[in-house]
Amino acid sequence: MLKLHGFSVSNYYNMVKLALLEKGLPFEEVLFYGGSSPQSVALSPRGKVPVLETEHGFLSETGVILDYIEQTQPGKALLPPDAFGQAKVRELLREIELYIELPARTCYAEAFFGMAVDPLIKERARADLLAGFATLKRNGRFAPYVAGEQMTIADLMFCFSVDLACLVGKKVLGVDWLADFPEAKALLDLLGKNPHMARIVADKEAAMPVFLELIKSGKR
Amino acid sequence: MLKLHGFSVSNYYNMVKLALLEKGLPFEEVLFYGGSSPQSVALSPRGKVPVLETEHGFLSETGVILDYIEQTQPGKALLPPDAFGQAKVRELLREIELYIELPARTCYAEAFFGMAVDPLIKERARADLLAGFATLKRNGRFAPYVAGEQMTIADLMFCFSVDLACLVGKKVLGVDWLADFPEAKALLDLLGKNPHMARIVADKEAAMPVFLELIKSGKR
Repeated sequence: MLKLHGFSVSNYYNMVKLALLEKGLPFEEVLFYGGSSPQSVALSPRGKVPVLETEHGFLSETGVILDYIEQTQPGKALLPPDAFGQAKVRELLREIELYIELPARTCYAEAFFGMAVDPLIKERARADLLAGFATLKRNGRFAPYVAGEQMTIADLMFCFSVDLACLVGKKVLGVDWLADFPEAKALLDLLGKNPHMARIVADKEAAMPVFLELIKSGKR
Repeated sequence: MLKLHGFSVSNYYNMVKLALLEKGLPFEEVLFYGGSSPQSVALSPRGKVPVLETEHGFLSETGVILDYIEQTQPGKALLPPDAFGQAKVRELLREIELYIELPARTCYAEAFFGMAVDPLIKERARADLLAGFATLKRNGRFAPYVAGEQMTIADLMFCFSVDLACLVGKKVLGVDWLADFPEAKALLDLLGKNPHMARIVADKEAAMPVFLELIKSGKR
């Protein structure tokens, strides 16, 4: 059986968890916070969450894990059948990750953990996110899913990245990224109503206090 | 016939170009500098180089393009045949991109274009690159290629990212990332002797003066 290592507050962890739930696959959750300890880097070379444990070994990097699950596991398809369609989904996934998730992440410390972020970093995040949301607006199909009529792995990246980037926008940068982007707002609402989201949100809320303690203690 | 849009100084462009040359595929090169103009973002949603033009449309994001070429085109395989082996190659490619290419890129302006980079950005790049090279050391197989005995798409990312990250190390950060990493040094040498590299290097040198003028004029 597949094992998913990570913790329920991690948005990357929840992308893979939702993929497994959508496909109806059995899996075991194993608590893992990542980091640079010898035990952590033995599981994930950069100490990152999540890690998928397969019969062949461990896999890191969410995009890679999602592709591997798609390629090897049964259940509902989260990629279209043709190679070009698959490439367009992966392009959207990568654009959301590189141009929305990563710049938003540079401000998480201030948005979620009460630590100040340097003004230079915030200024860059604002410019990068502006370009990132313009990219998503240009390339997303929102019909109603980000790559078309079916839910794909790009929606997993969208769902768990765009919501946090919006909180960063509101709390740290004073911008509402979705003010003139109703299609994205509608898709966030739609994905929020996914039948598996209740479990993911409940698990996240249950895991939050311990995670915040870890952050406060400087252990992560 | 496939068309590769971009310019010969771009390291991402050269990753895809080397893949096409290794596979012995016919392709046309089309000059494209990317950027945020309406013409650029019509070709690439984030205005990025390279873009692959296929019979079905345009594709951006190098990792996506490399996977698409692998999936649809004939010629020498640059991925192993099994799904887990493929995932490990993609994991290495992503780790090199996220943890070496992207932090090194934050210092390109100072390393290559004579513009000063803020000390805070350099300090972060140093820490990120230290962790990135440790990750590569931990996860790379170097047997002699980065993922094993055969050349793969991870070697393309390695070849054109690690060399520039080393120049950033020497010129900007005062660090030799390969001082205690002889396997990586040996692989850079091996890839430098690839029969197609002479063309890539010559094309890069020929394109450099015009590119440097563009940078100087602020048009890119």
